[in-house]
Amino acid sequence: MFSITPLDHSNASAVKAKIDNKTKPPGSLGALEELALQLALVLGNDVEIKQPTLLLFAGDHGVADEGVSIAPSEVTQLMVQNFLAGGAAINCFSQQLGWDLTVIDAGIKAPLDHAASNENYREHRVGPGTRNIALEAAMTSEQAQQCLQLGAAVAREKLSAGANVIACGEMGIANSTSAAAMTAKLLNCSARDVAGRGTGIDDTQLERKIQAIESAINRSDRRDPLQVLEEVGGFEIGQMAGAMLATAEAGAIILVDGFIATAAALLAQRIAPEARDYMVFAHRSHEQGHRLMLDALDAKPLLDLQLRLGEGTGAALALPLLQSATAFYNNMASLDAAKIELP
Amino acid sequence: MFSITPLDHSNASAVKAKIDNKTKPPGSLGALEELALQLALVLGNDVEIKQPTLLLFAGDHGVADEGVSIAPSEVTQLMVQNFLAGGAAINCFSQQLGWDLTVIDAGIKAPLDHAASNENYREHRVGPGTRNIALEAAMTSEQAQQCLQLGAAVAREKLSAGANVIACGEMGIANSTSAAAMTAKLLNCSARDVAGRGTGIDDTQLERKIQAIESAINRSDRRDPLQVLEEVGGFEIGQMAGAMLATAEAGAIILVDGFIATAAALLAQRIAPEARDYMVFAHRSHEQGHRLMLDALDAKPLLDLQLRLGEGTGAALALPLLQSATAFYNNMASLDAAKIELP
Repeated sequence: MFSITPLDHSNASAVKAKIDNKTKPPGSLGALEELALQLALVLGNDVEIKQPTLLLFAGDHGVADEGVSIAPSEVTQLMVQNFLAGGAAINCFSQQLGWDLTVIDAGIKAPLDHAASNENYREHRVGPGTRNIALEAAMTSEQAQQCLQLGAAVAREKLSAGANVIACGEMGIANSTSAAAMTAKLLNCSARDVAGRGTGIDDTQLERKIQAIESAINRSDRRDPLQVLEEVGGFEIGQMAGAMLATAEAGAIILVDGFIATAAALLAQRIAPEARDYMVFAHRSHEQGHRLMLDALDAKPLLDLQLRLGEGTGAALALPLLQSATAFYNNMASLDAAKIELP
Repeated sequence: MFSITPLDHSNASAVKAKIDNKTKPPGSLGALEELALQLALVLGNDVEIKQPTLLLFAGDHGVADEGVSIAPSEVTQLMVQNFLAGGAAINCFSQQLGWDLTVIDAGIKAPLDHAASNENYREHRVGPGTRNIALEAAMTSEQAQQCLQLGAAVAREKLSAGANVIACGEMGIANSTSAAAMTAKLLNCSARDVAGRGTGIDDTQLERKIQAIESAINRSDRRDPLQVLEEVGGFEIGQMAGAMLATAEAGAIILVDGFIATAAALLAQRIAPEARDYMVFAHRSHEQGHRLMLDALDAKPLLDLQLRLGEGTGAALALPLLQSATAFYNNMASLDAAKIELP
């Protein structure tokens, strides 16, 4: 379904030499140097961030019925309205930092009334929320396929218009339960290993969450990526994975947000391992399952700000660092030009 | 010499309530929430970052004669020329992020020839580099006082013109030796505890550096802040401390860079403890003595990117996070307005 070219590393030593000949001791820009190398290899001759685009997918989760979240499913729709009204954290950061923000209804419980007229809104509803994964599969196999296609479609629209960095954010009450279950299935670990406190649940809610994840992951031993999406995933998570795969296919940068987005990234990587080379990891979430996925993806996130909000906020905040990496790569003087010799 | 008003915390509960009533779970923006609180308390009614100003102080160090650095002192002057030509990392980041960058010759070995005509350059030379602290005091007590006054003067000029965030960067071959010796004197720890690899010295150079620091700190037991500057400090470090104290005096934000800048911040805090409340810490350096100072200052830096370049690069890169904190504080909708109830 996706044709992703493995990243061409043949230029890596030339890029490294260019970075090492900048007017600084070798390696002294730390993580920005590794980032510049990756951006240069992905973007090729024109190492500039263009039309950075944040796709914010919203979906509801039947497992919210198990009392695994601090808020009821209705808050998903209220927050989507808040995104469209410009009042959420991600709106503030997008406006500040120059993100093109598009909100996608991937399948919240009830569609919005008057949103279709908003040019930054897409209705890509796969259903009225997933089914309760503590009791049955989240979606059908057709719906899982549909998630990838719909997510890819909106990414391709933005990539065709000139974007070369795509970040995916999400909103969906109870989606950290789904992401944790995906982590457990894909990495073969236990519910207790991956269940965290989401946006702030208490001990009782955490125990309910662990029970729900255990029921979800023990119902079958199906572990193929699309089977995992079907069994325990979410409409917004599947669409994020589709958007990421389409971004890799286009040879652009995937900027990965926190816990939920990383579950989508892990799913994408299991569908097409070549996609990993196009991923930059924006931030380290305090959600405990995040570390396991980051290790599995050999990923070192740029930021660690104890964020646990979602919406793509971590990815949004990391954009200036990508721009700093291209700025020094393109504009910094060489040691030769400055007549400086370092050992 | 500096009259710093202790930060008024009387508004803290109102500011916290405003932050908690934003459309997000309480605490879910992590470090940005603590940052927004501090910015709101320091900046008062108008929580906006204005004319962010980076003061880049350059100074040479006699202790470079001990072979404690990867490069000779002449590189300090070459890098100052690079700053004025716009070719260094800090130039790239300043241009990208909107910093007003001013370069100050605080006392490099030889002054530049034709730089006086550059409006972004100041000659505030305290001397042709410090004396070799392995053998004698770095400077006289008059020079130590002069450092504070000259640093304060350039900060006051920028603060009067409307800046409300001042960051200090530095360039000076061997200045991590001076900063390490200051750390050891001010925190009463050993040369081995504080000596790091700077921009990348090998084991032999590290042993020489430890020997130089031991000689410097054991020559006397004078530990008053200005005595420490006089015994083992640097002209650029002293001027940074003066700039920081003037910034706190003006009720503005001090954005502290890495290891060398934190030595200046610690010096400033020991001169006037109230100055601490105005400091935001930009990044965690890999230099080992940095952790000791950060702990002593009860500071949690925003970024950890394995930077070890200096020039104020860590502070420069943290500016968008300060702007993100003010953006969500000023512009994000309240739960009441969005008709959302969270527990």
